[in-house]
Parts: sequence; structure tokens; C-alpha cells
Amino acid sequence: MKKKMNRSFEKGALAIITQAFVLSFIVLYTLDTVPSLSEYRRLFFTLDKAFLALFTAEYILRVWSAPDRRKYVLSFYGAVDLVSILPSLCSLGFLNFQAIRLARLMRLFKIFKSKTFSSALQKLQLAFIQVRSELFVFMFIVFILLYFSAVGIYHFEHEAQPDKFSSIPQSLWWALTTFTTVGYGDMYPITAGGRIFTSCVLLIGLAIVAIPTGLIASSLSTISAKERENIK
Amino acid sequence: MKKKMNRSFEKGALAIITQAFVLSFIVLYTLDTVPSLSEYRRLFFTLDKAFLALFTAEYILRVWSAPDRRKYVLSFYGAVDLVSILPSLCSLGFLNFQAIRLARLMRLFKIFKSKTFSSALQKLQLAFIQVRSELFVFMFIVFILLYFSAVGIYHFEHEAQPDKFSSIPQSLWWALTTFTTVGYGDMYPITAGGRIFTSCVLLIGLAIVAIPTGLIASSLSTISAKERENIK
Amino acid sequence: MKKKMNRSFEKGALAIITQAFVLSFIVLYTLDTVPSLSEYRRLFFTLDKAFLALFTAEYILRVWSAPDRRKYVLSFYGAVDLVSILPSLCSLGFLNFQAIRLARLMRLFKIFKSKTFSSALQKLQLAFIQVRSELFVFMFIVFILLYFSAVGIYHFEHEAQPDKFSSIPQSLWWALTTFTTVGYGDMYPITAGGRIFTSCVLLIGLAIVAIPTGLIASSLSTISAKERENIK
Amino acid sequence: MKKKMNRSFEKGALAIITQAFVLSFIVLYTLDTVPSLSEYRRLFFTLDKAFLALFTAEYILRVWSAPDRRKYVLSFYGAVDLVSILPSLCSLGFLNFQAIRLARLMRLFKIFKSKTFSSALQKLQLAFIQVRSELFVFMFIVFILLYFSAVGIYHFEHEAQPDKFSSIPQSLWWALTTFTTVGYGDMYPITAGGRIFTSCVLLIGLAIVAIPTGLIASSLSTISAKERENIK
Repeated sequence: MKKKMNRSFEKGALAIITQAFVLSFIVLYTLDTVPSLSEYRRLFFTLDKAFLALFTAEYILRVWSAPDRRKYVLSFYGAVDLVSILPSLCSLGFLNFQAIRLARLMRLFKIFKSKTFSSALQKLQLAFIQVRSELFVFMFIVFILLYFSAVGIYHFEHEAQPDKFSSIPQSLWWALTTFTTVGYGDMYPITAGGRIFTSCVLLIGLAIVAIPTGLIASSLSTISAKERENIK
Repeated sequence: MKKKMNRSFEKGALAIITQAFVLSFIVLYTLDTVPSLSEYRRLFFTLDKAFLALFTAEYILRVWSAPDRRKYVLSFYGAVDLVSILPSLCSLGFLNFQAIRLARLMRLFKIFKSKTFSSALQKLQLAFIQVRSELFVFMFIVFILLYFSAVGIYHFEHEAQPDKFSSIPQSLWWALTTFTTVGYGDMYPITAGGRIFTSCVLLIGLAIVAIPTGLIASSLSTISAKERENIK
Repeated sequence: MKKKMNRSFEKGALAIITQAFVLSFIVLYTLDTVPSLSEYRRLFFTLDKAFLALFTAEYILRVWSAPDRRKYVLSFYGAVDLVSILPSLCSLGFLNFQAIRLARLMRLFKIFKSKTFSSALQKLQLAFIQVRSELFVFMFIVFILLYFSAVGIYHFEHEAQPDKFSSIPQSLWWALTTFTTVGYGDMYPITAGGRIFTSCVLLIGLAIVAIPTGLIASSLSTISAKERENIK
Repeated sequence: MKKKMNRSFEKGALAIITQAFVLSFIVLYTLDTVPSLSEYRRLFFTLDKAFLALFTAEYILRVWSAPDRRKYVLSFYGAVDLVSILPSLCSLGFLNFQAIRLARLMRLFKIFKSKTFSSALQKLQLAFIQVRSELFVFMFIVFILLYFSAVGIYHFEHEAQPDKFSSIPQSLWWALTTFTTVGYGDMYPITAGGRIFTSCVLLIGLAIVAIPTGLIASSLSTISAKERENIK
């Protein structure tokens, strides 16, 4: 019975407070980078220290209140909790500024601890497992397609635009932004050969690139449909 | 029987006239902003006043002819009708020009009053409710993905392009236009690290971003298929 | 029996020759516009006259060989055949050059006369009819969404970029290229308000814009699946 | 029994070594084009010769160890093996540099020899065969749509932008990058007519262009669902 009460407490006030803290921290971290708010940097620094104290207090409270302390410390979220505060605690004196920042990002994962998220992540995981082998192979086919297109466009455009299509890694960047249809416009073929080559690989390639997305979406909707049937 | 006649009248002449007025108003409002047509602004102003009179007359007519006047006034579309004329009426003397314009936009919602639209909106609403929980969680995952990508690209590109990737909110704009594959070309990574990071998050992220769309579309087509089966 | 022979002849040699002529004509028409090939324009002009003679001869042959001449002349493809040669014939003396060109384009529709195409078009038509009402309403919702976004972005960006977001029709062009994720990069929001507004409408809007496409694709694949089951 | 041992050997050590060699070769070939690594070109040249020797040795070993030598030499992958080394062998003295490079690319296909890939390719092939006829026809409709759009935009934009929309082949490039929603931004309509035309064909065309992708994805997910049911 004590466990039940504990869990309802977990779902209730503490969970909401924890998530509010994480969101506040994200907002703080984001505003900290805006140049026009640089005058408030001192305030941001103080607030950041306060957040570190809060997260540390929360970790100690959780270890203390856990029904099985060892289990919590060794669980995934226990590890996340520790990792999200440990580097910052250590860095108070030793590590450089950049390292602190990157470590703080891990605090974001705390949001995944909520019940709703866990359920959705399990569903996504199940959908992923169902189409795992197809997904893996298609990702590989996509990589081969990207590489093949990059090599092709390199041969067609290197002479006409030696500064843009300067190497195959550069051409791979073009291939990625083109096949994902992002199309920034920083690199595009200008020769007739390069454009005909792009047209051919694009019409075939778009279908290939869209397949992994389609597979996950279709698998997810099948799982959701089955769930709705089971409820009936 | 009076109610039936009233409803058929609602579907018939008056509904068509109302929608024709709304469409004409939209055309008028749109043309009013075109600089090359500024010589006709006086005409547009007069026509706009005429529309205001028409919409007001329509509202009075509807209240007068409604079987249950109170129900109509308190209904969603009754409120829409009132809101679409009230600010304009008030602004004849008091409010500024900008406020009038924004209020007029609400008149657009009158189109949703048509029978066909209500049915389609109900279907869309049903599809939305079916995948509500998945949708909500995936939107959240999308937000986390966008934020994570923005933070990552900020760290990779801030030094190379301090004017473009100047802050995390700026980088969030890049993340949004990239993951929705819009790719305006106003911001794009130029460092090797930034491009490799983009490639990694893009290939994984595109699938995640496309899932909410896929879920709604699949849910809608399931509902439509069931409807067709029921008719048979 | 005569009819059968006629139809097999139709499917066979004549059909292939006709389609080869149409394709040759398209290639000729396309090359005619390339500036670097302007020296061959005289040749193109002669070849074009030859094609006109060929298409005219084909039309006369078809009328003459049809089992029911009146039926052929009044059929859709009979009309297409006539329309594809009549303006060109008339223009030998009277119409201007531009008009001839546009008329020639109708000859393209001849390709739809092939058996395989008719079957696929019927399937597409069936898929379209099945989701007709949803499609119609969603196209309308898409239009409202585009208009609403255009009005919104006009209010946010007009002052900052009066030459780019100069009017609502201009902003509609931005809305179209953004919601279809084309993103040319000729117009994009630069103010914080405009970017936040774009982010909000884009994340909701993309799902709406993608629904009509998803509906047709899903309806088509259902029809194809049923066909495969019927064959078994 | 000898055959079984042979096959397990094929799946095991040799296969992993072969694929490791192919991947190393791709990395080498890619780095060879990076301008900033030009000082290592001599090393890359030596390594390339080593890879040629390795691939030749592998081919000889495979012919020698095959249960049925003639069958292996005449099989698809036997031919790929030969083609991937023969041009390079010949070019030691006779062919030019460019030709060697392009021949090397065929070595990439060796990756498709792995068991996992063959199974996924078979599934993709099955999905392709199921929607073959629809796919073929829709690709044709897509081509007609692209051509029609290119001709249309050429007539609308040629006068306003004679250097960008200079010919129909140039306009075809615009049509391709627009309908695939890549939208580089190198060519876009600026006239009111061109933009209205683009809006009309884009809203209809996007659905058409997305159908082939949707058909393959839907066919693939049906095949995967059937397979999962058979396992149960």
C-alpha cells in the first residue's frame, strides 16, 4: 500500500514540478544564447546554479524515497538523473564551459520518464521492431543510392563548378539535401548532363527514400488499429 | 413542418448567397492590399462598408427567423456571426484600422457553417480523436527532436556563421525549415561537423516528423473505408 | 470478325506508329525552343509541317476505316484528333505563331488513347470518386489554411519586407511554396513574430496539406489489393 | 556436405572480409577526391593498387573454390566480380584515368551479394511486381504532367526571365525540382500568370507525383504484414 501511495505521488505533484523545472531549464538555456539578452547573462548564470541545486536535491530525494534504492540507482532513469547532474557538479571547479553545456542537454531526457511518453515510446519501439529488418536494409540501400548519386554528380559537375562540387563528401551533402527534398539551394547542378542524371536518380530515388518513413507509419497505424479492436 | 421548410431554406438560397458574400469579401480584402490597385482603394472602402451592412442585416435576419432565438445566439456559429460584425460596427468610430482588418478575418469561419463542411470536419475530428494520444506524444517527440537539432547545429555552426546561427531560437528556425523539408536556403550548415550532424539527425528525424501526418491520413482512410462498407 | 481484325490492327502497328509520331513531335517541339539549336529552326519548321500532314492523314484514315464513322467523329478521342490538327490547318494562313504552338500541345492527349492508359485512368478515376467528398472538402480546408497563413504572414512581415511581402496575393505565393515544402527561398519570414507564426501553422498545416495525397494513395492501393484478390 | 561447409564459410569469415574490403575501398575512393588531402594521393594510389590485387585474388579464389565453376562464372555476381576487376586490370597500361574510376564503382554492387540484402531486394522486387502496371502508368502520367507544366511555365515566364526559362528543357528542370518539392531556388516564376499556373498544377500535381511512392510503400507493408501472419 505504501508503494501505491508512492507511485500516485510520483504521478502527481512531484512529477509535474520536475517537468516544470526541466522546461524552465530549457527556456533558460535557450535564452542564454540570444545575443540581445546578453545583459541578463549574470542572472541566467545564477538561475542555472539554482537549477543545478534543485536537480541535485531531487536526485537525493528520489534515492532516499525509493522503495528499492539499489534498483533505482541502477535503472535507466536513475542513471539519467545521475548523469544529468554529475558533470555539472564536477565542473563547478574542473571542466571547461563547453562541457557543462553539452552535459546539461541530457537533462532533457527526464521528460521521457512520464507515463504517457513511456507508452508511446513502447509503441514506437514495437513498430520499429516489426519492420526492423526491412528498415535496416532500406537505410543501407538509401546510403548506397546517396553515395552513387554523389559520385555521379561529382563526375558531371566537378569541372563546371569546381568550388561547389569540389569532392565526393561535398557531393554527398548535395545528395542528402536533394533526396530528402530539403533543397537549400547552396549546391545544384548546372550542366545538362548533371541535370539529366539528377532527374533520373531523383524520380527513382525519392520512392526509395520515402519507403522507410512509410514502413514505420504503416506499422504504427496497424498497431494502433489492433489496440482499438482489443478495447472493443 | 415549419422547421423543415426553414432548414431547406437554410441549405438553399440564403446559404448560397451568404457564402457568395463571404467569398466576395475575401476577394475584396485581398485586392485591397495590392499596391498597384491603390487607386481603387476608395471603391474598396465603400464596398467594405456595404459588406458590413450586409453581414449585419444577415445577423438580424437570422436572429429574427431562428426557431429558438436564444439557442442560435448562444451557439458557436451564432457567436461567430456576432464576432464577425461587432468589432467592425464598433470600429466605425473608435478602433484603429489594423484592428478592423483582423476582426474581418473571423468572417472566414462562416464557410464552416455549410453542411458538407460540418460532416468532413466531424470525420477529421473523429480521425484526430482516434490517434489523439499518439499524435500528442509524437508532436512532443518532434519538438524535442527540433530542439535537440537546434542545440546541436548551434554548437557546430555558431563559430563559422555567427550572424546566421546567432542563437538557439535562430537555430530552431533552421531546424523547423529543414525537418519540414521546406529548405528556404536562408540558413544552412557549412562546416563538415555541422553537415555530418545534419545528415544523421535528418535521416532519423524525417521519419519521426512524417509519422503524425501518416497517422492522421491512415486513420482518415480507415474511417472512410468503414463508411463505404456500412453503405454496402 | 472484321471489327476484331480492325481492333487488333488498332492495338498493333498503327497504334505504335501513331505514338512514335506523337513522341517525335514532342521532341521536335522541345528542341525548337532551345536557343543554341536556333540554326536548325528551318529544319524544325519543315519537320513540323510534315507532322501536320501526317496527323491530318491519320485523321482521314481513321474516319475512313472506322466501323461507325459518326460515332468516332463524335467520340472524345475523335474530337481530340480533330482539335489537334484543325487549329494548325487553319493557321497555315490566318492565326498567329503563338496560337499554333498552344494548339499543338493538345496532340499530347493522343497518348491517353492507348489501352493500358485507359485502364489506369479508370482506376485513378475510381479512387478519386471513392474519396471525392473528402478530397473536395480537404482541398477547401487547404485553401482556407493557405489564405489564413497568407493574411497572417502579411501582417507580420509587411513592414519588415515591404518589397517581398507586398500584398496578400504575394503572401499567398509564399504560403503555397511553403506548405507544399517546395521552399524556393525567394520569400521567407525574417521577423521573430513571422517565424513563430510560420512554425505554428506549418506544423499543423503540413498534416492537412498531406491528407488529400494520402487519401488518393490509400484509396488506389485498396482498389489494387481488391483486384489482386479477385484474380486469385 | 562439402557444399554446406562451403556455404557457411561463404556466410562467415570470407563474406565479412570481402565487405570490409569493399567499404574500405569506398572510403579510400571518397577521400581521394578531397582537395585538402591531395598530399596523400600517392598513398591512395598505392592502396588502390593493393585493393585491385586483393579483388583479383578474391575472384581467382572464388572460381577455384566454387562447387560448379562454370555456373559461378556465368552467374550475375560472377559477372559483377569479373567486371569490377577486369577494366582496372586492363587499364594498368591502356585505358585513361577517368575510365578506371567509373569501372571501380561497380565493385559497390558486391554488397548486394549478402544474404540479408538478397531477401530485402526480393521483397522490394515483389512489391514492385505487384504494383508494376500502376507504377508504369503513373510514371508516364508524371512525365506528361512534368512536360505539360514545363511548356506552360515556359510560355508564362520566358519573356520575363529569358535567361532562366530560356527553353523547354530548362523549364523541365524547373518542373522536376518543383514537383519533387526540392525547390533549389535557382529558377522560380515571378510573373502573376506563372505563379497562378504553378499554384494550380502544383496542388493537383503533388498528389499525382506522390502516388507511385505511396503505392510501393503500401505494397511493401502489405507483404510484410502477410509474412508476420504466416510466422504466427
